[in-house]
Parts: sequence; structure tokens; C-alpha cells
Amino acid sequence: MSIDPRDPVAVAQALIRCESVTPAEGGAQALLESLLAPLGFEVWRPTFSDEGTPDVANLYARRGEGEAFVLAGHTDVVPTGDEARWTEGPFSGAIAGGELYGRGAVDMKGAIACMVAAVARALDGGGELPGPVAFLITGDEEGPAINGTAKLLEWAHARGERFSGCLLGEPTNPEALGDVAKIGRRGSLSGTVTLPGVQGHVAYPHLARNPVRELAPALTALLGEPLDEGTEHFEPSNLEVVGVRSGTGAFNVIPGEAALQFNVRFNDLHTADSLMALIRDRLDDALGAGAYALAFEPSNADAFLTAPGPLVEAVSAAIEAETGRRPALTTGGGTSDARFIKSYCPVIEFGLVGQTMHQTDERVAVADLETLTRIYGRALANAFG
Amino acid sequence: MSIDPRDPVAVAQALIRCESVTPAEGGAQALLESLLAPLGFEVWRPTFSDEGTPDVANLYARRGEGEAFVLAGHTDVVPTGDEARWTEGPFSGAIAGGELYGRGAVDMKGAIACMVAAVARALDGGGELPGPVAFLITGDEEGPAINGTAKLLEWAHARGERFSGCLLGEPTNPEALGDVAKIGRRGSLSGTVTLPGVQGHVAYPHLARNPVRELAPALTALLGEPLDEGTEHFEPSNLEVVGVRSGTGAFNVIPGEAALQFNVRFNDLHTADSLMALIRDRLDDALGAGAYALAFEPSNADAFLTAPGPLVEAVSAAIEAETGRRPALTTGGGTSDARFIKSYCPVIEFGLVGQTMHQTDERVAVADLETLTRIYGRALANAFG
Ligand SMILES: [Zn+2]
Ligand SMILES: [Zn+2]
Repeated sequence: MSIDPRDPVAVAQALIRCESVTPAEGGAQALLESLLAPLGFEVWRPTFSDEGTPDVANLYARRGEGEAFVLAGHTDVVPTGDEARWTEGPFSGAIAGGELYGRGAVDMKGAIACMVAAVARALDGGGELPGPVAFLITGDEEGPAINGTAKLLEWAHARGERFSGCLLGEPTNPEALGDVAKIGRRGSLSGTVTLPGVQGHVAYPHLARNPVRELAPALTALLGEPLDEGTEHFEPSNLEVVGVRSGTGAFNVIPGEAALQFNVRFNDLHTADSLMALIRDRLDDALGAGAYALAFEPSNADAFLTAPGPLVEAVSAAIEAETGRRPALTTGGGTSDARFIKSYCPVIEFGLVGQTMHQTDERVAVADLETLTRIYGRALANAFG
Repeated sequence: MSIDPRDPVAVAQALIRCESVTPAEGGAQALLESLLAPLGFEVWRPTFSDEGTPDVANLYARRGEGEAFVLAGHTDVVPTGDEARWTEGPFSGAIAGGELYGRGAVDMKGAIACMVAAVARALDGGGELPGPVAFLITGDEEGPAINGTAKLLEWAHARGERFSGCLLGEPTNPEALGDVAKIGRRGSLSGTVTLPGVQGHVAYPHLARNPVRELAPALTALLGEPLDEGTEHFEPSNLEVVGVRSGTGAFNVIPGEAALQFNVRFNDLHTADSLMALIRDRLDDALGAGAYALAFEPSNADAFLTAPGPLVEAVSAAIEAETGRRPALTTGGGTSDARFIKSYCPVIEFGLVGQTMHQTDERVAVADLETLTRIYGRALANAFG
């Protein structure tokens, strides 16, 4: 039975039935190719590799020449957890009570199905798209994100692909379709502070140097003063100490080292670089330069913001037309692949209702798939309008 | 070849050749029995057991009726480490360059040998001891100390044994014989503070509660103010935070709990009980009662002091007579079995030079064994004098 690409529910069901837990492709991208190629898309499916990570399948498709408007997403999903606890099988694509069940229903196979359906409807009966459109689909968003969107963008750019804007279909709505579109994301910086000491026996403290004594001032340096008060589009930056470790477990040994790990989610007042310098200054003041070691993780990302303008208006207007509400424009939550896309073109995120994402019984209201398809169709038209 | 009990070097060599790493008896207490019984000592060798710990052999011997003066020690030794790194085998009892090598040479088979020799010399040629003398010898001082001196004392007390005083032969001298006798030991108290939190994702700190934020005030409460300034015979009490633990290791998870372990070595201004209350007060002030959990380890010991008096004078005078120096009377260092003995009679510690104890090439000057034998002999005479 062939799938009608204009029907987001049928497409979503077919995608959910592909067992594409990161890094498995699971047939999901092959399915997308089989739907997009007949719609006149040229389809590429590059696989990327890197040391220490699994190979990952990716898909890029474009219809029309010139700067393309990008519809972006990921076909990979997080694991199901205990399948027995699901009301409907996580890969069944079953519909019950007006809701479509399955891992990826909202994050984000459902949204990809709406993108395909929006494009298919525009082309229906000899119609045309309002301009060149591309699909940028990765299989490595929920995993290490090494062999996914970042490399797919590089690959596309090297081939001469250029983009006017991007709509990423991550689930952005907390309660109902139309609540929130994301116009930016906070940056993320992780690091470790190591405090050296001299190990020894508790009965002979003069022969040891306990590094835990420096922990309190180190914590106060990191946590004592807020990093900022927030900006127009961002909440205040926030530092969390996510780990502290010292000691052997024995009560009679003064530890030889103490370490603390931290993560900062930061707004557009900082860059990862400026924040590294600020953290180092605060620790220098509290502990003295050279009294500690500070190492940052390689996986840092700057904050980004797509300032309100044509792209944000195109998407907001489409949402308002279909839901009667203008979405809040926020920048909260975790990171997404928008952190890579923003270096190539303005990017906005809007998708389904995220409530059940990553949980048992992930599911989407069937009615939302129809509404989101219409929103995506209007957004495309507006983006070229 | 039979061993001359009047020769501390021969006795020490024979004891070192017994491989009595805790909890093994290794033949060491059988050897002592074979030396003491012919000297007219009644010898008991009770073995004690407890759940979760190995059985341990102990020896009690007494000559004469009534309140006995106790010579106390342990035949167990710590492991050898890499035997290949020893100049002479750790169980060889070899003498080289005027020094007797072996595990236990100073801690404390050497001192036990001197005790045996002191008694044997007093009895030599029809002589008599100045009063009733007992040997209180355990095989569980370096281990958990559950099935050792504590139980041996209970056992002896239940049998009606009574003691006038005790000389414990732990290595007390830092540099040379005569430096230091220990007239007390600090108490020891160990505990764990647990700070509860709510685990969550760093991107959503409002859904979590990071317990690390309470670590700095908890550390300041414990470390901020000294516990006291010391007393006539004791150094200031000292608290060390020996462990801190929080977090999963992941940079994106706010930990659900933080814990810190501490140990206090405390003087005679405190008891374990009073210190528990003080620590709880300080944490209540800093964190609020109920905002944390506090648990103490079962292995706490109060400080004790044998105030200068007849026993201290008897031993000090003996030391001065043989070395020309009065020993410093101190209370520093780790704990010893004196913490158990002090509940039954006044106790003082004096033994060999501790420099090499617990190390590769543990060794004792042969000349020191002769001197210590004379000191112990004089101390016995003085104790009854
Ligand atoms: Zn997602
Ligand atoms: Zn010892």
C-alpha cells in the first residue's frame, strides 16, 4: 500500500514504524526518499563517520534552484524504555482516542510528516512551491550529534547549497499548538575545576594539605553572584555545579585532590570565550591564580538569537492564522540542532506539543498533525512572500 | 634451637619470622606462650569472633596474684607491600649494619620482645618480679580492632582480672629512644552529612534543586571556626572533611544529592557525644534543622589522658635512667589500643623509634632493643616501687 504524502497522519505512522533509535536509520530516511523523490526533490543520503562514534545516515533533498528555504529535523528517536509500559506499542503507530502513539510522535517524526504533507499539498494538482525548498534531515540529534546536522550543513555548503532561512520542527509547545516558537537558544559551557592537595592521614594534618578547604571559596566564586539579569529575549544565565568529587571513601585519609564540574546555560550577553575568561577571573580572585586547574569540555556552544524580523514574522503569522494565537517567542530549554544551522541562515523552531517527548506513551493529537501541516504550508508561502 | 627469652634480639627475630599479617596468628602467639609458660606465667589464648570480621587469636598471661601491671601489645603486622623492594626479606629477621629488618620490627614485635626479655631477666637466677605482671597481647590492632584488645579486656575483667596500670609498647619515638612517651590520645569521631536535592536537567533548573548550593555553607559550618585552642596536654582539636561526593559525572544533570564525610581528632575538652551535638548545632545554624541528614560512624572514641602521676613518673624515670633524657609527654598521632585499656587502668605508651613503621624496610637498631629492655625492666620495678 503506497502512502499518500499529503496525509501527515499516514506519513507519521509509517515513520514511527521505522525503528530508528539513534544511531539506527531504521528505514526512516529511505521512506522519506521514497516520498520526496516523486515530488520532484533531488535526494542525497550521505553517511558520516568519526572516530569513537557510530556511522550515521543523513538526508538532504532540494526542489528548485537558488537559495532554498530549509525544513529541518531528525528521524532518530530516543530509546523506548520498558515497551510493556506503553499503552500502544512504541513502534506501532497505533491511533487510540484521537491520538497517534509512538516513539517520535512529537519528537519529531510527526513534524517531519507535516513538512512532507505541506510540500505535497502545495504541489498537488500541478501546483508549485513558492520557491526552492530543501529538507535537512539527520539521524544523530538525540545522540552525540557529531555525525549529524553539523556535518550535513558543511557537506551541503561545500556542494554550493545556500539557504534563505530555516524552520526546525522540534516540539516547542508546552501545552497547545501555537504556544511557543523558539527564536534562539542559550549557549552551553561545561568545565572542571581541580583543586590540588597533598594526601595524608587525618591524624597528621600538618603532613597533608586538604583540598576540600578550597571547595567552599571555589563554590562561592562560581555560585555567589549571578552572571547577569537576563536580556530582552533571554532568561538570566545560570551556572550549576553538577558534580563534586573528593576523597577515597575512607574516613582516615585526607584527600589528595578535589574536583568540581559545572555547566553554564548562558544568554547573548556572553560567548563561550568571554564566559571562560569570567569564570577564570572569579576563581583567580577566590583561590589565587595557579592554585587550581580549569579545563573546559570540547562541546561548548554559543547562544544564538534570530532577532524578530521577516522569518519570525512569516512563521508567527502562519501560526496565528491557523490557531488564532500569536506564539510566545522564547529562547529557553535545552540545546537543539538550531545551534549549528544558525551559522548558515536565520532559523526558527516550531513543532508539536512536547509534553510526552522522551516518555512512555509519547503521542500526538491527530488533529494537531493536520493543523501543523497547514501552519507549515502557510509559513513556506509567507517566507517567500 | 631454643630461644633465650632474656635476649630481645633473638625473641624479636623469632617473632618477625612468624607471618602474622592481620588477622593471621602466624605462630607469633604460640611462640610467646612457649616463652612465657616456662617463666611461670599462666597463659590463656582466647579467639574472638564477630559478624563480618575474621576470627582473631589473642593471648593473656599472668604471673603472680592480685592487681597486675600490664604489658600490652599486638603481634599482628600490616602487609609487606612489594617484598622485592625490601633490602632484607620482611619475614627474614635478618640483621644488617646493626639493624634488625622485618615487618613488625618496630611496630611492635620488637617491643614485645623487650617486654619478654625484661621479665625473663628479672626472674633470672631465682629472681622475682616486683609484683604481679600480665601480658595483654592482641592479633587485631592493625585491622578492624573488633576481635582484639577490647574483647580481651572484657574477657579478662569477667574472669576477675584487675590491673594497676599498663605500659603499651607502640612505637612512640619520632627520632631516638627517649624522645616521647604518650600519655593520652585524641578522640576520633567520623560522620557523614547528606544534603538532599531534586535531580533534573541543567536546562530546566526550576524543575530541580541543586544540593551543591548547600555545600559551601555546610563546609563553612564545619571548617570555618576552630573547635578549640588546645589544652595543657593536647593540641587543638581538628576537623577534616575527608570526602565530598555529588553528581552522576554527566555535565547536563543537576545532582539529586550531595554528601560529605568528615573526621574529627579531638582533645579532652570534648567527648564524642558533646562533639556530635556541637556539629549538629553548627549545621542547624548554617542550613536549618531538617535541611540535611547527619549520621555518625560506629567507631568513635573519646579522647583520654593519663594525667602526670605515679605511672607516668615510673616510666619517665626509667627512660631517663637509661637514655639520659626525660621524654616529652604527648597526646598526638593516631589512635591506639590504649583507647580501650584506659577504661580499666591508667595507661602510658612507650616503645621503639617509629620512623620506618608500616614502610618498606621497617627496621630497628639492635642497640635500641637492649636499651628498651632495660627501660621496661626499670619501669616495672618503679611501677611497684
Ligand atoms: Zn528532537
Ligand atoms: Zn602498632
